[in-house]
Amino acid sequence: MDTNFECPLPWDAEDRILLGHGGGGRLMQKLLREKIQHVYEDRTLAQHDAAVIDLASRRVAMTTDSYVIRPLFFPGGDIGSLAVYGTVNDLAMAGATPRYLSLGFIIEEGLPIATLERILESIRQAAAHAGVAIITGDTKVVERGKGDGLFINTTGIGVVAPDLIIHPSRIAEGDAILLSGDLGRHGVAVMNAREARGGWQLDVTSDCAPLHREVEALLAASLDIHCLRDLTRGGLAAALHELVHDSGCSAVINEGALPVQAQVSAYCELLGLEAYAMANEGRFICILPEREALDALRILQRFPNAQDARIIGSFVQSAPPRVRLRSEWGTERNMLLFNGEQLPRIC
Amino acid sequence: MDTNFECPLPWDAEDRILLGHGGGGRLMQKLLREKIQHVYEDRTLAQHDAAVIDLASRRVAMTTDSYVIRPLFFPGGDIGSLAVYGTVNDLAMAGATPRYLSLGFIIEEGLPIATLERILESIRQAAAHAGVAIITGDTKVVERGKGDGLFINTTGIGVVAPDLIIHPSRIAEGDAILLSGDLGRHGVAVMNAREARGGWQLDVTSDCAPLHREVEALLAASLDIHCLRDLTRGGLAAALHELVHDSGCSAVINEGALPVQAQVSAYCELLGLEAYAMANEGRFICILPEREALDALRILQRFPNAQDARIIGSFVQSAPPRVRLRSEWGTERNMLLFNGEQLPRIC
Repeated sequence: MDTNFECPLPWDAEDRILLGHGGGGRLMQKLLREKIQHVYEDRTLAQHDAAVIDLASRRVAMTTDSYVIRPLFFPGGDIGSLAVYGTVNDLAMAGATPRYLSLGFIIEEGLPIATLERILESIRQAAAHAGVAIITGDTKVVERGKGDGLFINTTGIGVVAPDLIIHPSRIAEGDAILLSGDLGRHGVAVMNAREARGGWQLDVTSDCAPLHREVEALLAASLDIHCLRDLTRGGLAAALHELVHDSGCSAVINEGALPVQAQVSAYCELLGLEAYAMANEGRFICILPEREALDALRILQRFPNAQDARIIGSFVQSAPPRVRLRSEWGTERNMLLFNGEQLPRIC
Repeated sequence: MDTNFECPLPWDAEDRILLGHGGGGRLMQKLLREKIQHVYEDRTLAQHDAAVIDLASRRVAMTTDSYVIRPLFFPGGDIGSLAVYGTVNDLAMAGATPRYLSLGFIIEEGLPIATLERILESIRQAAAHAGVAIITGDTKVVERGKGDGLFINTTGIGVVAPDLIIHPSRIAEGDAILLSGDLGRHGVAVMNAREARGGWQLDVTSDCAPLHREVEALLAASLDIHCLRDLTRGGLAAALHELVHDSGCSAVINEGALPVQAQVSAYCELLGLEAYAMANEGRFICILPEREALDALRILQRFPNAQDARIIGSFVQSAPPRVRLRSEWGTERNMLLFNGEQLPRIC
């Protein structure tokens, strides 16, 4: 007695996500089997509550991020590629080789299934590009007006070399600060894409990209890297403030050394923003002893995504610890950490 | 030049979550340091993008779940304990010993901070009870009307014994199906809690509980467990339909053997529901060769949470594979899998 008469009636089930797609019933099994499982590395892994894998090492890094970015698609990326690269990058910042990702969807009822499919394809491509496997997932649906299209959580695990310790506590006086590329493009691209009429005619795309290959090259050169940090919400300013807080050292940044594209710079100036506080999704800072800084720079600049890498400052002892911006005329001021929110839902 | 004059003005920052709490700035750092980091096993782990840990084995299980349950608090639990036990249980169902969890919050602007604190405390207690460590996390805030109070993602990793394979593909003809306890309490407790006036005067609490100790005891007895599955969305019906689909075997269930509390049974009858399709959060089925079923039953019944465990049926060969319910009079019918949604947002 197979029946198709139960609620909700499946009249538009082919076009849009229904609450029933998250209910554990037939609709959900169909969605999983026909659409979502294509992103999995190995579909047999996904047929059970948990995926079982063999890691290359017992020493692992684990990280999690939820992505609530608005709009779902923006110049240079979408929520799918962002969810893969963002979590890959968090693993890389711990010196880990990213290996496996989980994928958790919270979908608002009414999302076009074509939109979901486009994002799934982006996830598949990003995972292939970054060399990570998606091995387990979950799908929930919430009522119209209780979500916003799509939220994605990705959690990642990667393997870490036995004695490697990359942590803010290792930051010491005299350490150089390297920046892997220009600032603020992700924030500006997303902010501009939100404007009702499509925003200004800007030629700015998000810098969204995986960073683990750059990190692996630095580690392979046996450089004594003290800390790594990718620039996301709050940009360079938030990253430096956290490291200053955690290490107890002050950071001094040469303002003139900060690479910013002309259009990003103009956009920020018009709106009274600071490029150093705008979000990135494919930039990181590397902190290591000054004597190794030039070697690190040469390695970084070999990568297309880090050709603009440069040394932007150093850590010094001073009480209380602060983030200082040094102008080209030698004057200094604090790099502000804004209190709350410059741009909500940037990642 | 520390200033407190930036937007949003922090006038009610002590009472409710603001968008700025998710922005990467000072408000967010304050929320993390003063409230959220208390749930972490080791706060130093949480000060970096990813936590680095040493596992007991290179063979690991990974699973993810997002929790969108409504209301946040219900008889017998809340979204916090559910998020811990639900993910612990998914690991246990792969035969893994749960070890580490990540914690991803998506908070709707306006959530009272006291509510968040109560849920954080519930998470902390549940993690301690289950013996797992929360090692990494993420917090995002979305605008009013773009979320629904709080969504939580937990992703878990656990270690798995070298040669253990617990998977639907191992299910074979003649295997017995054990159920660890009564059906439908989580679904009924949550459904009743949603009624505008507090629902009926029911004495039903959610069965929400960790299940890994029961599984560890079964494994320690060297029983040849073929498959395990916890009953969540869609209840016993959804679990059996998935296993039948994945194994190609039919399941035959003795309807009279299904334990259901009297009030759960009455509630379902009044509303035209089936207890076997209602959600549980602390029940599982264990599939193993019939000759080992009684041994497994004795082990299970030693646990307070599995005193009602019983053998409810078996797997047989038949084409096409189906889930059959056998009544006490010997008649058979299909156990229906509803199409969509019996009760949205049950976990």
